Amino acid sequence: MKKLINTPSETLKDFLNGFAAAYASVIAIDRQGRFVRRAEIRRDKVAIISGGGSGHEPLHVGFVGIGMLDAACPGQIFTSPTPDQILAAHAAVAGEPGALFLVKNYEGDQMNFDMAIEMLDAPIAKVVIDDDAGGAVSARSIGRRGVAGTFVVEKIVGAAAEARLDLDGCRRLAERTVARTRSMGVALSSCTVPLAGRPTFTLAEDEMEIGVGIHGEPGRERLPLGTSRSVAELLVDATLRALDTPDGADVLLFVNGFGGSPPMELYCLYGDARAALERRGCRVVRSLVGTYVTSLEMAGASVTVTLLDEDLARFWDAPALTPAFVR
Amino acid sequence: MKKLINTPSETLKDFLNGFAAAYASVIAIDRQGRFVRRAEIRRDKVAIISGGGSGHEPLHVGFVGIGMLDAACPGQIFTSPTPDQILAAHAAVAGEPGALFLVKNYEGDQMNFDMAIEMLDAPIAKVVIDDDAGGAVSARSIGRRGVAGTFVVEKIVGAAAEARLDLDGCRRLAERTVARTRSMGVALSSCTVPLAGRPTFTLAEDEMEIGVGIHGEPGRERLPLGTSRSVAELLVDATLRALDTPDGADVLLFVNGFGGSPPMELYCLYGDARAALERRGCRVVRSLVGTYVTSLEMAGASVTVTLLDEDLARFWDAPALTPAFVR
Repeated sequence: MKKLINTPSETLKDFLNGFAAAYASVIAIDRQGRFVRRAEIRRDKVAIISGGGSGHEPLHVGFVGIGMLDAACPGQIFTSPTPDQILAAHAAVAGEPGALFLVKNYEGDQMNFDMAIEMLDAPIAKVVIDDDAGGAVSARSIGRRGVAGTFVVEKIVGAAAEARLDLDGCRRLAERTVARTRSMGVALSSCTVPLAGRPTFTLAEDEMEIGVGIHGEPGRERLPLGTSRSVAELLVDATLRALDTPDGADVLLFVNGFGGSPPMELYCLYGDARAALERRGCRVVRSLVGTYVTSLEMAGASVTVTLLDEDLARFWDAPALTPAFVR
Repeated sequence: MKKLINTPSETLKDFLNGFAAAYASVIAIDRQGRFVRRAEIRRDKVAIISGGGSGHEPLHVGFVGIGMLDAACPGQIFTSPTPDQILAAHAAVAGEPGALFLVKNYEGDQMNFDMAIEMLDAPIAKVVIDDDAGGAVSARSIGRRGVAGTFVVEKIVGAAAEARLDLDGCRRLAERTVARTRSMGVALSSCTVPLAGRPTFTLAEDEMEIGVGIHGEPGRERLPLGTSRSVAELLVDATLRALDTPDGADVLLFVNGFGGSPPMELYCLYGDARAALERRGCRVVRSLVGTYVTSLEMAGASVTVTLLDEDLARFWDAPALTPAFVR
């Protein structure tokens, strides 16, 4: 296992310390490391709170700040945050307008956010993010998994809350964004969980895994390694089929790196995915290319497509100031 | 070779097409692909022009825009841009205040920018970027190589030109920034040049290369794989020794990923590098953590330290709007 870390069991603490020191002007970290919150708390708005296992950085902690998340709870690597983390984050940032929990569709995450909700006597809503069109059933998930589309939901709903949309409005907007967003990924290599010390799965030098999850969960199929063009076709095809896209739709195209694939390859895949979308009658009117939702150091990438409407485009375009995304 | 590309020989064209389509609101690409320029040309300021071999993305094309580069010339992978690319970029963006060429210290880059300068009858200056404290002599370089510190120079000098500093002022500021900036990198894996099809070098599972260049050039020494903490000590130590740092100096700390190392590891290394700097009496007053200057998909990272002064800090803090860096 080749990683720039110290003791595997201390990885979460170590990276959070570095992260918090680097971005002290935008975020603050709870003393016990239970959550990251925006530096200037605003209790006159709906608090947008997310969280999940670590190992997906910059998701979620990198998107705490103005116009995105008010707080994020980082679990151990690939492990859900605990209910007390969620309660502490809620206490730190939520005010009278209430709080919206954005939760990726994994059993542990859902359970722990639900437990926190049961213990809270305050206006709260929860929206489940399940954008993965990969579709293979996994032990960790109930139905579709939550993957890179989570970024899109956090950006759009975070901007709406910043614009003082109320709790019910934020919840409905989040649900609409989730319903209009689908993702599909490809892995060229596995990741290695630090405490495990060996790759989660293996791929031969001439193989790729289509439909892989962001924890190295099995995908839809294992295929001979393709070109950027053929991979883009597969990913765009699966994504659009999961979306029921009208012809001529205005879409956001988000090409996300899984951690081990460099910008040059992501730009290449973006170009091919865009061409594939245009051949299918879509108009790509918004774009994002970069490493936002990782699976540790896994090589590979995902394509996320969001069917835009006026609100979604407006909130996507709104300013944001967070450690890992600035607009 | 596992990469999200198409035909190896077409990689430059393919990724530039995707890049240009994704960022059409900020940059424009020359029809023949010779250069990328900012979308809105401003000929009333010093034009800041850079370029070099591709494979280091987002450097340089990702930093074209408001407050950084006016144009960048991408060569083939790890290959210098040609003089005619540089001339075309100059013609596209330079006005009466002149142009400043920021050129990393590689023989081919220096030669081709110098040839372009000889052919131009216009106010021009060139500043050589040679921030690499790695120090090992390489066939490709004369003296210290230009590596991740290039980002720092492009950010600071780009902001100064945007503020209408004149050509001589921009040149002197660039020289001062270079003199006050040193970098040192570590590789955990090699990169693979697409046309070569196999790794540039090999490292055993328990080895790392300290002082590596951004083309996989040999470093200072090959050591047993260390922890983030021990690596940070080595990199910070070499960087500061190359800088002649006064005690209590205010510094910028930039931890840069080489392409295959994910944000989680970079945050971890940042925390350890910051602690190492503080133990040596430095005050880390500005920070940057991310993947900005890559060596294709090489795993590893570099530490860059810039001794700040009032001007450097002010121009570092100034706004920028480019594909890969927004402030």
